[in-house]
Amino acid sequence: MAEEQNITPWEVSSAKINEEIDYEKVIRQFGCEHFTEEMRRKYGLDHHFFKRGIVFAHRDLGVILEHARKGGEIYLYTGRGPSSKSMHLGHSVPFLLCKSLQDTFGCKLVIQMTDDEKFIWKDITLEQAVQYGIENSKDIAAFGFDPKKTLIFSNVKYSHNFVGNTLKIEKTISLKDYNKVFGFTEASKVGQICFPSKQMSPCFPTSFPTFLDSNALCLIPASIDQDPYFRLARDIASNLKCPKPASIYTYFLPALQGVGEKMSASDNASSIYLNDSAEEIARKIKKYAFSGGRQTVEEHRREGADLSVDVAFHYLRFFLEDDAELERYGREYAAGKILSGEMKSICAEVVQKFVLEFQKRRASITDELMAEFFSDTKK
Amino acid sequence: MAEEQNITPWEVSSAKINEEIDYEKVIRQFGCEHFTEEMRRKYGLDHHFFKRGIVFAHRDLGVILEHARKGGEIYLYTGRGPSSKSMHLGHSVPFLLCKSLQDTFGCKLVIQMTDDEKFIWKDITLEQAVQYGIENSKDIAAFGFDPKKTLIFSNVKYSHNFVGNTLKIEKTISLKDYNKVFGFTEASKVGQICFPSKQMSPCFPTSFPTFLDSNALCLIPASIDQDPYFRLARDIASNLKCPKPASIYTYFLPALQGVGEKMSASDNASSIYLNDSAEEIARKIKKYAFSGGRQTVEEHRREGADLSVDVAFHYLRFFLEDDAELERYGREYAAGKILSGEMKSICAEVVQKFVLEFQKRRASITDELMAEFFSDTKK
Repeated sequence: MAEEQNITPWEVSSAKINEEIDYEKVIRQFGCEHFTEEMRRKYGLDHHFFKRGIVFAHRDLGVILEHARKGGEIYLYTGRGPSSKSMHLGHSVPFLLCKSLQDTFGCKLVIQMTDDEKFIWKDITLEQAVQYGIENSKDIAAFGFDPKKTLIFSNVKYSHNFVGNTLKIEKTISLKDYNKVFGFTEASKVGQICFPSKQMSPCFPTSFPTFLDSNALCLIPASIDQDPYFRLARDIASNLKCPKPASIYTYFLPALQGVGEKMSASDNASSIYLNDSAEEIARKIKKYAFSGGRQTVEEHRREGADLSVDVAFHYLRFFLEDDAELERYGREYAAGKILSGEMKSICAEVVQKFVLEFQKRRASITDELMAEFFSDTKK
Repeated sequence: MAEEQNITPWEVSSAKINEEIDYEKVIRQFGCEHFTEEMRRKYGLDHHFFKRGIVFAHRDLGVILEHARKGGEIYLYTGRGPSSKSMHLGHSVPFLLCKSLQDTFGCKLVIQMTDDEKFIWKDITLEQAVQYGIENSKDIAAFGFDPKKTLIFSNVKYSHNFVGNTLKIEKTISLKDYNKVFGFTEASKVGQICFPSKQMSPCFPTSFPTFLDSNALCLIPASIDQDPYFRLARDIASNLKCPKPASIYTYFLPALQGVGEKMSASDNASSIYLNDSAEEIARKIKKYAFSGGRQTVEEHRREGADLSVDVAFHYLRFFLEDDAELERYGREYAAGKILSGEMKSICAEVVQKFVLEFQKRRASITDELMAEFFSDTKK
């Protein structure tokens, strides 16, 4: 039996170990649209995630951008499942994207901490899940969002504020629809079935009456594995008398072990955490990062590196902002002029710089600032 | 195919029209215990619902009563699904029982308004369900509960206060368990599946930390169709580190049309509402109440009435408190000395008196009193 690539909200893996995820296939399978260079230029989306195709797919992004261009209100919605005390490098991707979009459009942002989901799915206590959510919220705040325009909330503590929308969603959708979209079975826990309506509710501005205008359009920056929620939310939007949410999807940041899987918070050896020390970052990259370099120096000098499977180079695409530098490193590595160990050192430096700057901002986060992020009365 | 009697939280019907519900079969099917005259005497349970076998089954009632006898704290938990503006006569049964138990034991009482459930199951808006809940809460208050010892709450507005227990229940139970107990299928709405954990949560005192001691034992007076919830709550109690809830179950008050089904709020002709006028009550009983009287006066005088199917006489068993009077009416009706029309007049008078007294108390309910019932800080 041939292995198949598997992209669900709970599992991400390519068909074969160290084979890149086939994002073209994901687009076909999920039925979303390609993000194009033409769109990027038309709307002036200059962040390197757009320029480098890290944002690769969307639903109705054009509708959102036209609305914003005409002065209509839009808001961003993203989330975080707090399953560990510190976030890792992969988690930063949607938040970097949100930060760039908030800066570009001056728009509001709601961030859902799915502590309830993590309690249900993981072997952790509810108190742990909530506490991880609080810690992760501080990590998120450190990305530099505007606290006057950003609401961070815990599902456990806040989701009753939009229970009306949650119930309306739950009245609309049958178990059969859920089974088809999420693959639930008789063995699924009831809590797994009760969760998706809570992730769908924030797609509708009426869930936040004190924070958003009821006619604001929703744009969801997320990684593609979360699309099932938002596809379903689009299907039932008219039942809630709301417009369909739009979405943009990014590639997964690969695990250190290889491009076939995404970085995972519960696997220490596959991940670089945002609270890792500079030494730890260098050590992990040197020890674990799967290399596209060749077996011997001679072979490498002759054939050059295989960039497509080289984890260090993938990290540069996400975290090295300078386009010219990235292009040069890629060219020279592919030509065998840069060796694998050198590429890992370059990568370690770039990641260390990114994490160090993050840690400085994280250290300056105060309880007062967090209270402002948690307050929903900022309309 | 033989018809079978059907007792679920959403449907109650006997095997044949106007055949009495076979409560012996229900006890066997659900696996609860008989309530016995011996228990009644031992614990001095003097309300006529106990004396007349209207309370017919229980789970662990002895455990609760022994605990109370030794000075341990117990609390009562019951509920109401607000699907119409006014409650009907049948709805009064668990509340009359709770009132008697609160008076006997001086215990606390929590009353759940399942406005969320009614929104999901019925063709009503969420606003209607919540409003019905508010109106029904006033009806409930009119049964004379002690506001210092009674908490009435709306699921929509309050259930987030025990979300921890709800999530723990949802993490414990699989969809397969639910399907077996509640008969859910792929066609079930997600909201139907998300509801039971909210009805189970109040079985555990830790759901009300500001109102109940965490070691209080729970006793649930309910009609037998609600047993699936509490059976399941007992099964998973140890996962929540709480004792199993106990329960006592009453017969259904029959619909006017016959003893084979319970009174239903959504069928005006089958029900006497607690806001019906005296004339309306008399008219409904005369017009609709199924009679156990015979076809002709001669036959009736000769053979006497069939009390088992006579709805008017059934209502007397619930609402005529005087045992001697009830015994005499039954004897004379069975002997053919009282005619069917006379029995209906007797019934109408008793029900009118009950409803009139209720309406007087209902008219005196103030917003201040309701605020006291809705407050959970009365520990």
